Amino acid sequence: MATNNYNTVSLIRKKRDGEALGQQEITYLIEQYTNDLLPDYQMSAFLMAAFLKGLNDGEASSLTHAMLHSGKVLDLSHIPGKKVDKHSTGGVGDKLSLILAPIVASYGIPVPMISGRGLGHTGGTLDKLESITGFTVDMSLDRYEQILSKCGMVMAGQTEEVAPADKRLYALRDVTATVESIPLIASSIMSKKLAEGIDALVLDVKFGSGAFMEAEEDAQKLAETLVAIGEDFGKETIAYLTNMNQPLGYKIGNWLEVEEAMEALQGQGPQDVMEVTHWLAGTMIMQGDKAETVQQGIEMSKEAVANGQAFEKWLGLTKEQGGDPAILRDLNLYPDPKHSFTFKAPSSGYVSAIDAYKTGLASLELGAGRKKKEDAVDPVAGLELHHKVGDKVSEGDILVTGYTSKEAFIDASQKELKDAFTIESKKPDPIKMVTHRVDRGGLHPIG
Amino acid sequence: MATNNYNTVSLIRKKRDGEALGQQEITYLIEQYTNDLLPDYQMSAFLMAAFLKGLNDGEASSLTHAMLHSGKVLDLSHIPGKKVDKHSTGGVGDKLSLILAPIVASYGIPVPMISGRGLGHTGGTLDKLESITGFTVDMSLDRYEQILSKCGMVMAGQTEEVAPADKRLYALRDVTATVESIPLIASSIMSKKLAEGIDALVLDVKFGSGAFMEAEEDAQKLAETLVAIGEDFGKETIAYLTNMNQPLGYKIGNWLEVEEAMEALQGQGPQDVMEVTHWLAGTMIMQGDKAETVQQGIEMSKEAVANGQAFEKWLGLTKEQGGDPAILRDLNLYPDPKHSFTFKAPSSGYVSAIDAYKTGLASLELGAGRKKKEDAVDPVAGLELHHKVGDKVSEGDILVTGYTSKEAFIDASQKELKDAFTIESKKPDPIKMVTHRVDRGGLHPIG
Repeated sequence: MATNNYNTVSLIRKKRDGEALGQQEITYLIEQYTNDLLPDYQMSAFLMAAFLKGLNDGEASSLTHAMLHSGKVLDLSHIPGKKVDKHSTGGVGDKLSLILAPIVASYGIPVPMISGRGLGHTGGTLDKLESITGFTVDMSLDRYEQILSKCGMVMAGQTEEVAPADKRLYALRDVTATVESIPLIASSIMSKKLAEGIDALVLDVKFGSGAFMEAEEDAQKLAETLVAIGEDFGKETIAYLTNMNQPLGYKIGNWLEVEEAMEALQGQGPQDVMEVTHWLAGTMIMQGDKAETVQQGIEMSKEAVANGQAFEKWLGLTKEQGGDPAILRDLNLYPDPKHSFTFKAPSSGYVSAIDAYKTGLASLELGAGRKKKEDAVDPVAGLELHHKVGDKVSEGDILVTGYTSKEAFIDASQKELKDAFTIESKKPDPIKMVTHRVDRGGLHPIG
Repeated sequence: MATNNYNTVSLIRKKRDGEALGQQEITYLIEQYTNDLLPDYQMSAFLMAAFLKGLNDGEASSLTHAMLHSGKVLDLSHIPGKKVDKHSTGGVGDKLSLILAPIVASYGIPVPMISGRGLGHTGGTLDKLESITGFTVDMSLDRYEQILSKCGMVMAGQTEEVAPADKRLYALRDVTATVESIPLIASSIMSKKLAEGIDALVLDVKFGSGAFMEAEEDAQKLAETLVAIGEDFGKETIAYLTNMNQPLGYKIGNWLEVEEAMEALQGQGPQDVMEVTHWLAGTMIMQGDKAETVQQGIEMSKEAVANGQAFEKWLGLTKEQGGDPAILRDLNLYPDPKHSFTFKAPSSGYVSAIDAYKTGLASLELGAGRKKKEDAVDPVAGLELHHKVGDKVSEGDILVTGYTSKEAFIDASQKELKDAFTIESKKPDPIKMVTHRVDRGGLHPIG
């Protein structure tokens, strides 16, 4: 390391004073930190300075690069075809990975997907997958490549080998109030995604009450930073801004979302879920060189659902990863939750809003998610919505059925639901699900 | 501690977002930190947020209060009279404490003075005192009070018992680029000074090339914050903005400054040294209720020098603290430095500027100061200036004589001196030494 010329305090001071750091300077900080030569207290001062003074796209790329190379970077070049993945910034009822990955893979495009667990009001793909009896997401990187070769897709959890600097940095940000920084978030996401060995990436950047970025303009900035980093690494990166002002689909919870995803793969998906799925999958099909345009990709995505090839692809993967395909073919085989309750409309009118954040918390309270990292999740816990925004309801109609293994959890969940629904006399405007696309050419409104 | 309601991360976030913290919130942070319940990495994130978002006067007072009460606060109420002290933000050639403390004490005003050691280009009072053969500054707080009772003054080093939180915080700031923050500096100064058991305080806030705050407006802000904190604690606090654009007096170094201070106490002090001394001492005499006005105090300060009472007071203290008064009565008894060199005028004209920072470094290089905290100082090392700003010199005239115990140090010192003097054909305007006074009534120009 030819890095002896840099002094940590002077680099912190430089960022503190609003100057941009060079690639070597950022690499120095991250390498020293990863090698335990730079203490947490200096890194946290740097992070706070970066939070308040910002990092430009070049700095965010440098940070991504340094964190990416703190661990193993997969080389999947021996597997033919452009490897394409999707990342979502997280939402309530977001089971899209389970639908779009097999759609895309069914066209022979390898989809190497490393996902996370849920924390707080949003669920995690790994928790959903593990609700499928026998399905395992913990594997070596060798096994990961083997499944990808054999099935054309793989769904795994992050290992310690991937971007360890990001893991340490994220833990430090969590306790130093430096989480909500767009360049820090973007570098964290991209360092993990780029380690997967992908050639192209689609990003689902959500805005609204249930999203990490509530304001659409913040989501836009995040999307732009993510795209800038991806393109800087030579990976075609396209982001969509999508609406998370009500939960996605009707089902929230781990097994409940698997159910809805399986229904979707068999042509019975909710309109909002399918709209976003086809945009993302269609783009990935184009990125995988199997379609000329996104529109053509969308048609192919719909076709893969209609003819059952995507569902078959998913069943094949499930079997390979130890899961029971029979239970996915006949969802009624799954054990029923012990307890349920209903939440009814307090008045008549049109459902004009469903607070995604509150419904996410209501599902969390039932055991579907984690309040702390160590918590276990209840696979059957969650909510089924019976109405969504735009529906006409009468006082006393059931709006939600809640499920849980622990009766004691019901009260807290009902409390969260109390203000989650808004019912008004006027029929609301329809929600636009996909509002913008961000690519290397900039921001483009959709439709 | 009824502090369980506060969460560290939320307090860091609050400051990060530019909100002001309450007294209880700041007390919580400092108490937790002092008790090792709040790790360095959270404190450094808070410090960087405070650095960049600022602390208002109330927050600075709260921080001072919390740091003050992290250790022992002296109660000197059993000693009659108003206890008055001076603090300087540090300069080059600043030996004023050794002159003004005995002046003020000679009028029966107790002067309890806790000083620091030098670091970098500025010297420390303790190092100067210790250059006096036998003089000891390390003592228990009991002994400190005993000397104050007996001599009417005392000059001691900071003990571990005083403001330990400040000590830890300062060390953390030093390695996280969070030193140069006016409210953090002010709280650090005041927490130590208020622990001394004083009733009133005079502050010498320096600006210019050799000062901690180069710009006069920064010095003014620091003075205002210091005064606001002092007054908030019910202590009459008056600050002067003084010029540090050339070294104070003619002598820089530990024993060299003792020499100049002893000359000053015997009526032979340089004009700039005496001007600032009398302003500060005159104010302290007024604060100690022995003069009606600062002007009357200044006259009394001059009188205490003229009639020798201040010098006798100093000799008495020296004896009490183990020092050899004989050597102070006859400065020639002191051992001569081993090596010396001269630095000559490169051209003829008027000395228009002497860079105090560079002369400070030149003295440091000779061994008069510390580059690192662990370094030992050479008592005889330093510089004697033969000309100051406004003097007419001819090419080849000796501007400086340097002294050191280590010949090898001379080269580096000469390098620093090379650009320290500016000689121009035009006679420069005289330097105004004391420009402003800051008190509870605000900022007042002097003269």
